[in-house]
Amino acid sequence: MPRSSRADAQRTRDAIIREAVDDASRNGLEAITIGVLAGRLEMSKAGVIGPFGSKEALQLAALEAALLVFREVVWDPVAAVAPGRARLEAVIERWVGCYLEADVFPGGCFLTQAAADFDGRTGPVRDAIERASRRWDKVLANEVRTAIEQGELEDSDPAQVAFELVALAQGINQARQLRHDPDAGARGRAAMYRALRAVAA
Amino acid sequence: MPRSSRADAQRTRDAIIREAVDDASRNGLEAITIGVLAGRLEMSKAGVIGPFGSKEALQLAALEAALLVFREVVWDPVAAVAPGRARLEAVIERWVGCYLEADVFPGGCFLTQAAADFDGRTGPVRDAIERASRRWDKVLANEVRTAIEQGELEDSDPAQVAFELVALAQGINQARQLRHDPDAGARGRAAMYRALRAVAA
Repeated sequence: MPRSSRADAQRTRDAIIREAVDDASRNGLEAITIGVLAGRLEMSKAGVIGPFGSKEALQLAALEAALLVFREVVWDPVAAVAPGRARLEAVIERWVGCYLEADVFPGGCFLTQAAADFDGRTGPVRDAIERASRRWDKVLANEVRTAIEQGELEDSDPAQVAFELVALAQGINQARQLRHDPDAGARGRAAMYRALRAVAA
Repeated sequence: MPRSSRADAQRTRDAIIREAVDDASRNGLEAITIGVLAGRLEMSKAGVIGPFGSKEALQLAALEAALLVFREVVWDPVAAVAPGRARLEAVIERWVGCYLEADVFPGGCFLTQAAADFDGRTGPVRDAIERASRRWDKVLANEVRTAIEQGELEDSDPAQVAFELVALAQGINQARQLRHDPDAGARGRAAMYRALRAVAA
């Protein structure tokens, strides 16, 4: 394949994935239909599925792309902050302010939507969502652990703090998406900071 | 219609709704397909859709049935408890222990699933889900307000407490359904009780 065709093929693949991610954040990763994507992209169904081989492979590619967006928006900008309490607070600010409140995906948090869709199913998409969820829990718990070791947080259960932060992010997402609650971000952020302080008590 | 036929029709309708609720809790209210329900119930597609008239009407009937289950499991058993802190704690026990941990629906919390499915859509199903969500928020906030007035909770923001309780319930549900976390109920319950104590601080 000549270089320009390869670049074209990559651009087409990226455009399909972008459309699939947008659609999935609104209607669910399972509800993606090749026909709808083909219509929006003005392509044939065969042209949409071709670069991936199957709907499941396209779902996995969309999930991977959404995880990358989450990482670029929430984690990468704070990766250089000092580990521990400072980075944990920076993560909360990015997560709430730049991801949930910014409506990075048109239908709200991609992962919350995907988890709700696939938690009752089996297969590689579900497994990939579970892995991503566990990985983020671990990142948060590690940060809490470091903060405790550095004396920046009271001795507490890192997994409990991680559980609460993730739950509150889900709460923000649902309040914003379902009830268009303008206070959701502020409520969730306040509760997250309280979770950092209060778990030891 | 003779009495026995009416009873038969009601039984058929109930069986379809039961199957639709189970399916929706696993795969989503939007993912219900008349064909799958017909296969499971050993009925024709026309027989499944007939009592409702449309897929949307069947979705609304399934939602209503699921809300009734939630009410029967979580609220009705504690309705007679003294309003305020006592009833709020009784609600938490029923909600976590008898609803979320008991897997009342095979795919976890019906409402969380339905909200994720429909929050990016428009129409009567989405509106009914939003109404149910607002109603439950109001029940919780009213109970917190009563507890404050009775001096059983520190002066706090009832809407904030309601927000946190709902978020934590979502967190329990996702941790159970996606990660099969056996500690999810205990973690969520502990955080809910802390939310009651800590919001004033």
